[in-house]
Amino acid sequence: MSLDESGYVGLVLEKLSSSNIKIGDTICVKRNEEEYVGVLMPRSQVGSDQFHLVLKLESGYNIGIKLGQDSQVFKISSGKKKQSVSAEKELARKNLPTASILSTGGTIASKVDYQTGAVNPALSAQDLYDTVPELGDYANVRAKVIMSVLSENIQPNDWTKIARSVAVEIKAGSDGVVIAHGTDTLGFTAAALSFALQNLPVPVVLVGSQRSSDRPSSDAAMNLIGAINLATRANAAAVFVLMHAETGDSYLHAHLGTRTRKLHTSRRDAFQSVNGYPVYRVSGQDIMELRSPLSRRNTERKLNMKPKFEEKVALVKTNPSIEASLIDLFVERGYKGILIEGTGLGHAPDRLQSSIKKAIDAGIVVAMSSQCLFGRINMNVYRSGVELLDIGVVPSEDMFPETALVKLMWVLANTKDSESAKTLFLKPLAGEIDMRSEESEYAKTFGGD
Amino acid sequence: MSLDESGYVGLVLEKLSSSNIKIGDTICVKRNEEEYVGVLMPRSQVGSDQFHLVLKLESGYNIGIKLGQDSQVFKISSGKKKQSVSAEKELARKNLPTASILSTGGTIASKVDYQTGAVNPALSAQDLYDTVPELGDYANVRAKVIMSVLSENIQPNDWTKIARSVAVEIKAGSDGVVIAHGTDTLGFTAAALSFALQNLPVPVVLVGSQRSSDRPSSDAAMNLIGAINLATRANAAAVFVLMHAETGDSYLHAHLGTRTRKLHTSRRDAFQSVNGYPVYRVSGQDIMELRSPLSRRNTERKLNMKPKFEEKVALVKTNPSIEASLIDLFVERGYKGILIEGTGLGHAPDRLQSSIKKAIDAGIVVAMSSQCLFGRINMNVYRSGVELLDIGVVPSEDMFPETALVKLMWVLANTKDSESAKTLFLKPLAGEIDMRSEESEYAKTFGGD
Repeated sequence: MSLDESGYVGLVLEKLSSSNIKIGDTICVKRNEEEYVGVLMPRSQVGSDQFHLVLKLESGYNIGIKLGQDSQVFKISSGKKKQSVSAEKELARKNLPTASILSTGGTIASKVDYQTGAVNPALSAQDLYDTVPELGDYANVRAKVIMSVLSENIQPNDWTKIARSVAVEIKAGSDGVVIAHGTDTLGFTAAALSFALQNLPVPVVLVGSQRSSDRPSSDAAMNLIGAINLATRANAAAVFVLMHAETGDSYLHAHLGTRTRKLHTSRRDAFQSVNGYPVYRVSGQDIMELRSPLSRRNTERKLNMKPKFEEKVALVKTNPSIEASLIDLFVERGYKGILIEGTGLGHAPDRLQSSIKKAIDAGIVVAMSSQCLFGRINMNVYRSGVELLDIGVVPSEDMFPETALVKLMWVLANTKDSESAKTLFLKPLAGEIDMRSEESEYAKTFGGD
Repeated sequence: MSLDESGYVGLVLEKLSSSNIKIGDTICVKRNEEEYVGVLMPRSQVGSDQFHLVLKLESGYNIGIKLGQDSQVFKISSGKKKQSVSAEKELARKNLPTASILSTGGTIASKVDYQTGAVNPALSAQDLYDTVPELGDYANVRAKVIMSVLSENIQPNDWTKIARSVAVEIKAGSDGVVIAHGTDTLGFTAAALSFALQNLPVPVVLVGSQRSSDRPSSDAAMNLIGAINLATRANAAAVFVLMHAETGDSYLHAHLGTRTRKLHTSRRDAFQSVNGYPVYRVSGQDIMELRSPLSRRNTERKLNMKPKFEEKVALVKTNPSIEASLIDLFVERGYKGILIEGTGLGHAPDRLQSSIKKAIDAGIVVAMSSQCLFGRINMNVYRSGVELLDIGVVPSEDMFPETALVKLMWVLANTKDSESAKTLFLKPLAGEIDMRSEESEYAKTFGGD
């Protein structure tokens, strides 16, 4: 990456250019009496201001340093990205495992837009590697950009594309695949890949960050390093989401792809297992298995791809003002499935019943989940649940709504009629339904009293 | 209540009738070598079986006892409901505070349907009182049935009705009002009453139960007793939700009406404060104030009723398959407000933007909340958020989607144009927006590693 793509302008660009410093170089900055040594990061978090540069210190933290006219900047050593081809070959020779990083966009691959102050997807997979050069200490990394979008824009056909890209990497002999993804819909994509990538030989690890990688407080580096290690070293073959387990930089949790939900808008530990527990605790190269993964790593195993999803599936969240005609609309528009996010144990207002019945009579698969998020659907307890079961509504068991929605999309693309779709919907495939899941798997607020 | 309405049939009914035993009587049951003493409960949890009766033991627990031909049943004393009018007057004379119980239906007022095995709303407020006769030890109770519905069927005009019924009780001098409500939409109603009942002089406590009151494991009695005490004794004047704080019968938590969400389908401690903490810890008559309530009890204060809600408000939860035409539909149908349940910090897919703009141009108020539930909306961080703000989308701050939806309905019924609606939406009124709320107010799963 050349410096003028890095976001640095004015005074900082001038000083860096005059010392022939490139992103990734280890440099020394002298300002007044202070001296800082660290790796020059690609972009500053400080908007369009021409006075700040960002260094990654040896501690792993990034800091922004404001330069004055008198500040001095020296190069100490060139960054790893400057390694010659022979040096790269040397890395491979070290018998390191091979990891693939597929970048899809999102905060983990974002930079600050200097015009709006907002964050845009921009860093390539190579940039990620440049930003976290120590990735090379753990694995021989193959980095590819497969798309570049903020994850709220990811659609089911993108899941298909990502699944196919994973298959290419696995076929090429990757020891594990890391997918850098925006956090907003990371849980949806993780569930989708869990169904699409059957009979996996190696782990597939989705990773994101809650602070963009050019911000001093970014969780991107630690999450990426953990993901590379989990993907290449864990004795597992399943889809995981790996993110901070708490607000500090102590350790990460790997959650099952079908059980992961973003539960906080901003905390680094926003991701949690819902109706399940984390499978691994990860810190750098330390990988602690907390419970058995769904299946073990086996490079002889042949990946079975089922990458298609039916897009005509609606998510209908019930609420006190919902109108029955909303259900009718989806019937008229040729939808194939409706996932109701109902209340409590799996209820919907009685006034929706006749429209739900019409939808089912029209061949639409209607499934029921709960806006409670935690807990199991049980439609046998109350009259309204019993009546919906009688009509033919399918309970989503202990799947929370987002995973149930993705599974319904997948099931409808992989079956021939609504009866076989219902049967497949209720069959546990990737840890998404667990008849033994317990009420103890529940998140509670502490410190309140 | 006469015995034949109680659900008892066959052998049990025979034995009870021959000893002239009524519901609420304290009785002794001898079966083989065992002997049980307790209060006869109105209905059995054991479906249509003719062999079980349910006793409330002195410990507060209900148990089901299977009778045989040889079992013996004696009356020890008649139930409190048999007290004469003069005895009731005596109660009032004790200078007990006056509590109103308004019953709306739901599990707390349910019985098992012996034909389907499912639970139906049926118990009247008087039945509740009969089921938990010790309520009379704490307050002079005025019980009314204002509706009888499972709470998934509660609509905004029911909130208006409930608010008006509360006002009647307050005007009549009640020291506190308890509303027995189904748990499915209890959080919605609590938020609605928080906005509708302004300038409250006394507490309004919504209470439900996760197990119906005729089941041995019911949480109804403990919740009701706590609610009566909180309503009549707490030095507060606000709307609260009072439910079990944990799975045992140790204590209850009172949550602010605008901050309460059902987070589990079946646990007794399904209700938690989201982006906030409980205000009281309650166990029987013990009321511990954990943090200052919004305002203090003051019977001189004059209730200001704002009980109207705009029903034409849609809840749109974004997801990877959502189509922009869904927004257009609500515009065409004359909706006044749309609450988007977006992702992360408050994002929606870019493909919805032009429809959202059209909706806003048509005078519809569009607000943004997050499906994360926990955390604050911040649309200044990412490009897509910034663009939505530019279009005129209103951030819901730290309101979770259900409270934001209810507030939008209320705001639209109490303002004249969309600009004043937006301003009122962003104004903190009942603890629903707190600029100081912290990331620490977050529920986490423990025991996973």
